[in-house]
Amino acid sequence: MTALQELLAFNRTTEALGQVMGRLGWDQETFMPPGAAEQRGEEMAALEGVLHARRTDPKVGEWLAAAKPETEAEAAQLREIGRGHARAVKVPAELASELARLTSVSQGIWARARAEEDVAAFLPTLSQVVALRREEAAAIADGGDLYDALLQDYEPGATAAEIAALFDRMRPRLKDLRSRLAGAKMPTPLQGHFAADAQMALAHETAERFGYDFAHGRLDLAVHPFSSGSGADVRITTRVDEGEPMGCLYSTIHEVGHACYEQNIAPALRLSALGQGVSMGVHESQSRIYENQLGRSPEFCRFLHGRMEAHFGALSASQEEIARVINRVETGFIRTEADEVHYNLHIMLRFDLERQLFDGTLEVADLEEAWNDRFAADFGMTVDKPSNGVLQDVHWSVGLFGYFPTYTLGNVYAGCLYAALRRDVPGLDAALAAGDPAPALDWLRERLQRHGGLRTPRETIEHATGAEISEEHLLAYLEAKYGALFGL
Amino acid sequence: MTALQELLAFNRTTEALGQVMGRLGWDQETFMPPGAAEQRGEEMAALEGVLHARRTDPKVGEWLAAAKPETEAEAAQLREIGRGHARAVKVPAELASELARLTSVSQGIWARARAEEDVAAFLPTLSQVVALRREEAAAIADGGDLYDALLQDYEPGATAAEIAALFDRMRPRLKDLRSRLAGAKMPTPLQGHFAADAQMALAHETAERFGYDFAHGRLDLAVHPFSSGSGADVRITTRVDEGEPMGCLYSTIHEVGHACYEQNIAPALRLSALGQGVSMGVHESQSRIYENQLGRSPEFCRFLHGRMEAHFGALSASQEEIARVINRVETGFIRTEADEVHYNLHIMLRFDLERQLFDGTLEVADLEEAWNDRFAADFGMTVDKPSNGVLQDVHWSVGLFGYFPTYTLGNVYAGCLYAALRRDVPGLDAALAAGDPAPALDWLRERLQRHGGLRTPRETIEHATGAEISEEHLLAYLEAKYGALFGL
Repeated sequence: MTALQELLAFNRTTEALGQVMGRLGWDQETFMPPGAAEQRGEEMAALEGVLHARRTDPKVGEWLAAAKPETEAEAAQLREIGRGHARAVKVPAELASELARLTSVSQGIWARARAEEDVAAFLPTLSQVVALRREEAAAIADGGDLYDALLQDYEPGATAAEIAALFDRMRPRLKDLRSRLAGAKMPTPLQGHFAADAQMALAHETAERFGYDFAHGRLDLAVHPFSSGSGADVRITTRVDEGEPMGCLYSTIHEVGHACYEQNIAPALRLSALGQGVSMGVHESQSRIYENQLGRSPEFCRFLHGRMEAHFGALSASQEEIARVINRVETGFIRTEADEVHYNLHIMLRFDLERQLFDGTLEVADLEEAWNDRFAADFGMTVDKPSNGVLQDVHWSVGLFGYFPTYTLGNVYAGCLYAALRRDVPGLDAALAAGDPAPALDWLRERLQRHGGLRTPRETIEHATGAEISEEHLLAYLEAKYGALFGL
Repeated sequence: MTALQELLAFNRTTEALGQVMGRLGWDQETFMPPGAAEQRGEEMAALEGVLHARRTDPKVGEWLAAAKPETEAEAAQLREIGRGHARAVKVPAELASELARLTSVSQGIWARARAEEDVAAFLPTLSQVVALRREEAAAIADGGDLYDALLQDYEPGATAAEIAALFDRMRPRLKDLRSRLAGAKMPTPLQGHFAADAQMALAHETAERFGYDFAHGRLDLAVHPFSSGSGADVRITTRVDEGEPMGCLYSTIHEVGHACYEQNIAPALRLSALGQGVSMGVHESQSRIYENQLGRSPEFCRFLHGRMEAHFGALSASQEEIARVINRVETGFIRTEADEVHYNLHIMLRFDLERQLFDGTLEVADLEEAWNDRFAADFGMTVDKPSNGVLQDVHWSVGLFGYFPTYTLGNVYAGCLYAALRRDVPGLDAALAAGDPAPALDWLRERLQRHGGLRTPRETIEHATGAEISEEHLLAYLEAKYGALFGL
């Protein structure tokens, strides 16, 4: 075997073991008995040790040096395997295991602090997490920007400076749209009782409508919706609130977007370094375009009205009103409940604060005040309690710094993809009005999803759209959609 | 760290990875999407490779040689780790992987042959499986008996000669009891429709009654009932036939016996070489005593009548009749459907045939004829089709030779344990009549279950009972129980 072949065979086994790790995570959030948590932690640590040993194996470095790629795909395999290997060998094993140990307990400390509205109880732990992640970033950065080093785990090739410039261009127009919508009349949410079984039946039917393949996946309940796995086994979860049917439904469509990206990657790339979505941002572009541009389009909302009445009986909103109900805009404290207009403002706040934590201009001790000041400035509301402010997200407690901006990158990418989609697929609105997103899904699969990690994130989007990435598409889409819906 | 400490730490990680492998098997039989089978095979092969490398790691041999045990438990750890290591290093890696490859396809070939009643379609594959297992046995046996080598995987310390002598002593009395029962009047089975939900509710309630801890386990549906996992996460499955409620219920009690053995092993032994049930035979003693001596006792059957009527409404059998209905005896072709009297005769037939396959006195080509002749002699019935005869069990197709006798060893052990239990726990029948097996369960947990693999299988039973193992207890129990129930 050539060095390249040996490397690919070795990496295939590593990828297979990575899938096993993902399945353990899925099980933990779905069916694991409550008393098994501690043992599960030990099982996952054992498997993580195996994965770390494989990723840092000196043989990988030797094969990488000796391999001679002959195709674009082979070069991409080397790029991705090399990226993972370089990152793994740069981080001292002791630091990696200390970080794993800390973040396995820090999430529980955060959860208690949030439940008790006690920021002070969380700050010492958060300081430790920041310190260790900073140490890790320094090991990876080779003297470069620490936050840029963090970004590479989630959005390879992205830089904080570019993201900051992008966000600076977006913020004024989003704030302006937000202000104009604050004066518009909003419909009341749907009223009624929506039985869990009926919600799950509608979720199942809608998942299939959006192309999710149940022969290679399943839909279960979990506290937080997520998608898990790659290749032939990609599972999703949703949640149910019997007083409110939209959360279950749109969480499902969102996760279907993530899952279809994974399911639609070319089988030849499965269990390889190119066999997963290429970045968090590109992943989020798929979940968002499924959920928002397609799923929350006025055309699809009107179609959905009939399916909802079939499952729930008569609704409190008419078919004429339903798109406004589904797209109603309201300023609120919580990111995960935010509408399309507010969502990115939540992200920008977090991005700026976490960047400051890493460039040393903000201390953890001052984080709550900085959050509350910024929230008042951007949202015009005063944070009333920590669980509605700095303690609301799990991310920082588990060390996910550099992750938040990928949500907005995903929205920007989705804007670009949607513009290209409208250009290339003329009958899109009519198909959505008939409940058929297939023309859009086919376009996404062919132009983007099937290629997996073949190209970098930026190249992936630009290859799909044939144009440079620009925030203009997303902003124009939001202004047009919300302007038309609410008569601005 | 001492060599012993290093060995135990290394083995703990191996055990944790072994639990992960078990969970993949559980997922495969319960919730895995159908299209994921091929990828799952690759994931399990990757993990199996990791486990094999750890079990054969030369460091393990060095630590074993250098370790100085100071307690009975440490000596037992070395015994069990050493046994696994010795077996793993004796089998050439190529043979192990060839066996894994063959048995992963042979099960499908067997299943098709059984569905099509075509023995000839299975025999070439079975010949290959026998040949490879024989090669493996020769590698392990060091010149000793091949079948004895096979037995060590399931019942360490057992020998074919001892088992044959045991079975020879048992056979005449079982056949005699069988003949006498053939002349007795048997009640009709329960008639009616038994809704799946109600069956599962009764199964859940009964599992709890028999001590199964749902905080460290769960009960799901699968094609074949099984128990999976050790320590803090031990899951069971059952099956439902709405025309017949006893299969679901007694499969559940059976698997609860297996699972409670695992759940009740002392926490200090978890994720160690002593942290699982010590052998298949001892495991089966637990499942059988829960299912038969306790669960099918006339006292518990009478209690159960009330619970069944609570779940299913009025039954077609009275409380007076129910123990006879549950314990009705009928000669049949299928081992897994056999009553307590016939069951061991099914096992003896398989044991003798598989021993002959390995000592060269029976060819695979002659297996069906030998099966049918023997069945006629022992059961007085002519096998009507291969799925009722030589093709009925999955075991041989996946290379499980040496496994069958552990079922009867389990019954014999259960007989010994039950005799000791009756000696030590005077109020047993009254408690069972009140639906309370706890006095029996407490005795089993303290005397046997909590010790895991501390002692050899034989020592485990003898420690629990304080007496030598003898088939007399099982035979006397069967003769007394069935004599009383059916007026022999």
